[in-house]
Amino acid sequence: MTQRQAEDDHPPSSAEMFTRAVALLTAQGDLRVWSVIISVFGDLALERNDVITGTLLTRLTTLMGLKPEAVRVALFRLRKDGWITSHKTGRSSAYRLTDMGFGETQAARARIYAPSLPEPESWQLLVSRPMVQAARAQDEKTLQEQGFHVVGPGIYLGAGDLSAGDEFLAIDGQITRLPDWLRVSVPPDGLEQGFADLCTRLRDLGALLDGGAPKLDATERATLRVLIVHHWRRLLLRQPNLPDRFFPDGWPGVACRGRVMALLARLERPALGELQETPG
Amino acid sequence: MTQRQAEDDHPPSSAEMFTRAVALLTAQGDLRVWSVIISVFGDLALERNDVITGTLLTRLTTLMGLKPEAVRVALFRLRKDGWITSHKTGRSSAYRLTDMGFGETQAARARIYAPSLPEPESWQLLVSRPMVQAARAQDEKTLQEQGFHVVGPGIYLGAGDLSAGDEFLAIDGQITRLPDWLRVSVPPDGLEQGFADLCTRLRDLGALLDGGAPKLDATERATLRVLIVHHWRRLLLRQPNLPDRFFPDGWPGVACRGRVMALLARLERPALGELQETPG
Repeated sequence: MTQRQAEDDHPPSSAEMFTRAVALLTAQGDLRVWSVIISVFGDLALERNDVITGTLLTRLTTLMGLKPEAVRVALFRLRKDGWITSHKTGRSSAYRLTDMGFGETQAARARIYAPSLPEPESWQLLVSRPMVQAARAQDEKTLQEQGFHVVGPGIYLGAGDLSAGDEFLAIDGQITRLPDWLRVSVPPDGLEQGFADLCTRLRDLGALLDGGAPKLDATERATLRVLIVHHWRRLLLRQPNLPDRFFPDGWPGVACRGRVMALLARLERPALGELQETPG
Repeated sequence: MTQRQAEDDHPPSSAEMFTRAVALLTAQGDLRVWSVIISVFGDLALERNDVITGTLLTRLTTLMGLKPEAVRVALFRLRKDGWITSHKTGRSSAYRLTDMGFGETQAARARIYAPSLPEPESWQLLVSRPMVQAARAQDEKTLQEQGFHVVGPGIYLGAGDLSAGDEFLAIDGQITRLPDWLRVSVPPDGLEQGFADLCTRLRDLGALLDGGAPKLDATERATLRVLIVHHWRRLLLRQPNLPDRFFPDGWPGVACRGRVMALLARLERPALGELQETPG
């Protein structure tokens, strides 16, 4: 019996629906715990000094099916890598992003929650001097971190307001022709399938919620939101930060973005205070 | 005894001065006769239907030290290659540029006589799809003919109003950084020495004319003009059509241009009618 038939027969209870929703978003069993925890902070800790209690973290990750021991290891690693700090409050711990951690999540949020990718006012194309491949690889790494896309060997495209070194030929202006060969080359290998899979899961999730999303409580909404943001973020941040027209026709990342935005709007973000006060 | 000392001792007669001037401009003995004849048309036949008589051509080329037999061969070749047509007028011949010939000289004149190279209102940078070298060489040839400069493999820079195929990534705008490595790479090999040599010859010619340029007759002025334009054109059209700031610091083409313009202003262009009426 398929899930859709089951829904037709007797609408699921709120608890059943939540369980099925989590199953849809964890079916691939590929959650990296430390990365999920960053997604928790990214979606819920919006202010610089927001604190997330160990109690809340345990509650959310348990609902996602993650093991407490794996969460403890991940928290240790995140502290060690400078993403979070912790302090004791009575018998339990509380966690907060470091300056670095907050900066990274803040920067990523601009991409993750953007309902569309606006065209920058101007573009710049950089051309490097001829150089050996090893030196070029270093340039590519640096410029990609700054937000440039590698169009070809020694050729970099970025928004007009990005700054880059003096050693490049630079032209600032408008992209007047965007050929198919370039659009096809923009997404890295493997990303199309990833977006297509997520798109399917989000479509199924939307159908599931059509029954009774409003009945979900704050913790349940937070759990689903974090899982959606997590999967979306993992794929999105692997693709170049370019507007939709730079991608091949029918690029599934576009449909995926629409579904993410619709689901997040539907699963209203609970305030952190509300979540922390909920008994564990 | 140097030339300068000779001038100090007794100023040369007009005829002596002309002979020395021609010697300065033909000292390298590298005149290609057919190319000199194109320079004659280019400097003197400004209107579409201007005719140059065989008599005038013979007179000018003889003054340059070219052999009548070489001129006959060159005229034959220019007719065969579609540059000029000829018709008989009485016992002598008259020559006229074809549409192709006039188009080519007209296009070259825009560069040859420009007192400076203005910056275009906008630039465009084209990036080609990755391709094998043979295909790229074809692209380079086509685009260079259209006025683009090859910045690197598959990267072409041109004025914003040039048109090029749809298959390139194109960005239109302003050049905001022009690094030294590019400027050094712009001139083709060997051109710097050629410009430097011409610059020296033009400096010496200027010094020579300081005495008595106004005394030169129309034929003499035409002869010197054609030789100056000829040498200048042969070098200039080998360098990319880019403003001075794209060339290395101290690029001798810049000083050369100034001297060419000053000398042409001084050696006023005689009207073609005046030249043809002069007894041979």
